[in-house]
Amino acid sequence: MVSSDNRVIIFDTTLRDGEQSPGASMSLDEKLRVAHALAELKVDVIEAGFAIASNGDFRSVNEIAKQIKGPTICSLARATKGDIERAGEALVPAENKRIHTFISTSPLHMKYKLQMEPERVLEKVSESVAFARRFTDDVEWSAEDGSRTEHDFLCRCVEAAIDAGATTINIPDTVGYTTPGEYAAIMTMLFNRVPNIDKAILSVHCHNDLGLAVANSLAAVQAGARQIECTINGLGERAGNAALEEILMALQTRNDVMPYSTGLDSTKIMNASRLVSAVSGFVVQPNKAIVGANAFAHESGIHQDGYLKHAETYEIMKPQSIGLNKSSLVMGKHSGRHAFKEKLKELGFAEMGDNAIQDAFDRFKELADKKKEVYDDDIVALVDDGLRDNEHIKFVSLGVICGSKGPQVAELELTVNGETKTAKTTGDGPIDATFNAIQEIYPHTEWQLKLYQVHAVTEGTDAQAQVTVKLEGDGRTVIGNASSTDTVVASCMAYVTAVNKLILKSQKTAPDAMAS
Amino acid sequence: MVSSDNRVIIFDTTLRDGEQSPGASMSLDEKLRVAHALAELKVDVIEAGFAIASNGDFRSVNEIAKQIKGPTICSLARATKGDIERAGEALVPAENKRIHTFISTSPLHMKYKLQMEPERVLEKVSESVAFARRFTDDVEWSAEDGSRTEHDFLCRCVEAAIDAGATTINIPDTVGYTTPGEYAAIMTMLFNRVPNIDKAILSVHCHNDLGLAVANSLAAVQAGARQIECTINGLGERAGNAALEEILMALQTRNDVMPYSTGLDSTKIMNASRLVSAVSGFVVQPNKAIVGANAFAHESGIHQDGYLKHAETYEIMKPQSIGLNKSSLVMGKHSGRHAFKEKLKELGFAEMGDNAIQDAFDRFKELADKKKEVYDDDIVALVDDGLRDNEHIKFVSLGVICGSKGPQVAELELTVNGETKTAKTTGDGPIDATFNAIQEIYPHTEWQLKLYQVHAVTEGTDAQAQVTVKLEGDGRTVIGNASSTDTVVASCMAYVTAVNKLILKSQKTAPDAMAS
Repeated sequence: MVSSDNRVIIFDTTLRDGEQSPGASMSLDEKLRVAHALAELKVDVIEAGFAIASNGDFRSVNEIAKQIKGPTICSLARATKGDIERAGEALVPAENKRIHTFISTSPLHMKYKLQMEPERVLEKVSESVAFARRFTDDVEWSAEDGSRTEHDFLCRCVEAAIDAGATTINIPDTVGYTTPGEYAAIMTMLFNRVPNIDKAILSVHCHNDLGLAVANSLAAVQAGARQIECTINGLGERAGNAALEEILMALQTRNDVMPYSTGLDSTKIMNASRLVSAVSGFVVQPNKAIVGANAFAHESGIHQDGYLKHAETYEIMKPQSIGLNKSSLVMGKHSGRHAFKEKLKELGFAEMGDNAIQDAFDRFKELADKKKEVYDDDIVALVDDGLRDNEHIKFVSLGVICGSKGPQVAELELTVNGETKTAKTTGDGPIDATFNAIQEIYPHTEWQLKLYQVHAVTEGTDAQAQVTVKLEGDGRTVIGNASSTDTVVASCMAYVTAVNKLILKSQKTAPDAMAS
Repeated sequence: MVSSDNRVIIFDTTLRDGEQSPGASMSLDEKLRVAHALAELKVDVIEAGFAIASNGDFRSVNEIAKQIKGPTICSLARATKGDIERAGEALVPAENKRIHTFISTSPLHMKYKLQMEPERVLEKVSESVAFARRFTDDVEWSAEDGSRTEHDFLCRCVEAAIDAGATTINIPDTVGYTTPGEYAAIMTMLFNRVPNIDKAILSVHCHNDLGLAVANSLAAVQAGARQIECTINGLGERAGNAALEEILMALQTRNDVMPYSTGLDSTKIMNASRLVSAVSGFVVQPNKAIVGANAFAHESGIHQDGYLKHAETYEIMKPQSIGLNKSSLVMGKHSGRHAFKEKLKELGFAEMGDNAIQDAFDRFKELADKKKEVYDDDIVALVDDGLRDNEHIKFVSLGVICGSKGPQVAELELTVNGETKTAKTTGDGPIDATFNAIQEIYPHTEWQLKLYQVHAVTEGTDAQAQVTVKLEGDGRTVIGNASSTDTVVASCMAYVTAVNKLILKSQKTAPDAMAS
């Protein structure tokens, strides 16, 4: 329906389409923290995962369904009974649940991916939606590769899905191929030609391969769509999905020409962005819209001059509107346990147990002794470090000698399943020497280091270094993060974390995934 | 004119608007290398700088005008005789030269920034364009904050600029505020209302504050604009400018619905992107469209399956079309000097002198001894390190002891203006200890470390670490880059480079800048 209601539903798929991007996989704890942040941001729907993909995916959809109140919780499912049943089962504890089922409808996908005739695809649309309705009244159907689907066939599929009980119809631009004009025309075409279109909400899901995901989403809304699927930081496969923060701030800033509302609380954007960047290991580039480090920096000579004369000459949004507060200095060595606990809540760690809080507080005190000023980001980093579940290998100590005069030597002590092991190794540089020591203690020559990066968590030479390591093995990719004022120690801990994750993963069933 | 000619002029402003972003400032050598890469990419116009802003800016516009053949070379100038004269002077050696003059036309900017009545602004438009025509027939005029300018007044200014001899009229979306529909409507309005509009090319210049820069640029072209101003990697103030690579690949991939051509060679995109990222210190996020590390990664289960069955099910562009070659392994310890020189040419270092080549070759041999496989990126990194001009402080040697058992100690030797100096210091971690040693040898307590990051240049634990350091002092921000297999050594060298740059900068005249 071209709704007279201008409320746009925000469907966040950071935990499904975002988490699916190579290297971005998250642990259960990390997913729960992101889900809490999304609930704080007040998204309408959280796509929590793809229940049948693995036991880990099932468990995270299920836990999010249990713990997160407010948003509707959704699981993805292909057009099969097995997928839909598993989604329904995972969603049982949810206050409000949605099953999102999909099938490809474009000629290319039907022929090469599904190897199925169009008429059979059409039957599966009706069957899958009707079956999903047994588990919930809130069923979304997606036409995978919808933007490249032949129009007559798309109309028939959409009509069949609505007839079978779908309440949301999503037309994904799966490969990031469409343009604003073309995409809006598809929406208008559906409103004009599908007889029962007034019985469902039309939804869009855009990928950013050509840099047009946000513009395509907004053009579709202007043509009558009332749900946007998006992710924090534009996380997602390849060039990612439409970025939630850009969509929200565009709608808010240009409400004069785009008079649509959302239920989101924009002041929670920065928290969500930082959290997703930390747990996924995907950096946000400085010139990223809204959440990049430079997005609110007005520093060039003439700009600064104009800015000082009148902020609006160059500033179209207030930093406060996205929760960006320049003065984030908060804690010092004299801060007490109560203040620390309050700060944790503010930073989105409301659900931590007493032991974890005590542990974090101890590490905070240790850090405050070393570092003059402790910022919000420092606290997030040290709490992140504490949330390590099921550790197979544990860091004990490390001593390194390095520099330009060589050789570089690392002396490392780890415990492997509780047993203490040591190694003394050389390498090209302190990091190579350290990683060689890990290799000696826990051999894993078939695994490959795919990414190594270090960021200072805050400013100044005494900042903590946050290290991100990406390891690949057995077709799986994992990220390990750790922080310390000692880069070499942080590197070692991050690598050990990645190794632990990869050990955990290889004990699970084989992964399976999809994207729409 | 709504041209029957569908050729779109690509005006690259990486070296002006891009370089103006906080922390992205480049040395003369770096600017020349970027200019060469832009010429290889076959952009039509290179905006090389803002000649009056500083002696350094003047010199870089002048050198680029001397050395770069092919593209038109352009300098920015405010609407004053001094600015325009200086631009004309810098451009003397250019084969084809353009002066780009601008003034603000929006009510907000005229009132608060210019503090000038509209009628006076209109006079200055005519005066400045007519004066610029004394130096070249190719004059571009920009209405700063054009997208927020009152329509009647914008029409009068555009008509006056064309009457005075402007051949290109640019309507910038200075603050990144507009939407595709609104921006296209401004173009259409100008075509309908400005009587002499057929005598100039209409140009657009978009900022990405709301994530819409590329879509806005393309919408304007569809409404008749025939020049797009953009930057590599979307570099630029705040959220940056429209990204050249996204515009090009959108036009190329969707030529069916956007039948416009450019003169660009898309296979040079990756080279240009890597170079700009390296010299600006601005990382490209993995999920960045076109040039992000994941942009061409098709790795999720179902995607991979579909991809293997038929590439086009998920791939709308070929990696080769942007010059992304997976197999970039090229050199080993047995590669000779001639092969190395050829490789340098291929990587865009055609202009290196014999001494610099020998120096780079020596460092390549040293690296090849340490590292099994030497990739293109490794070579770019080691050449980058060699191109340090006017070094005040030079690195000699560093020895560091670090690890979890503390204390961390650095023993450093530098030369300051040729004189050898040493220091032995402690710190929180090896980096802090090393930076403290630099501080002891060359005190600069009033300067602040704003950014510290490390990336592995290639994959594997023996990869070189590329360190980026951002220093701020006296209102100036500089970037220092360095690479080594030893992270701590690279950190030291990057910091020393930044200190050298800041010393150099503070010896120059005060900076001045603008943006349109």
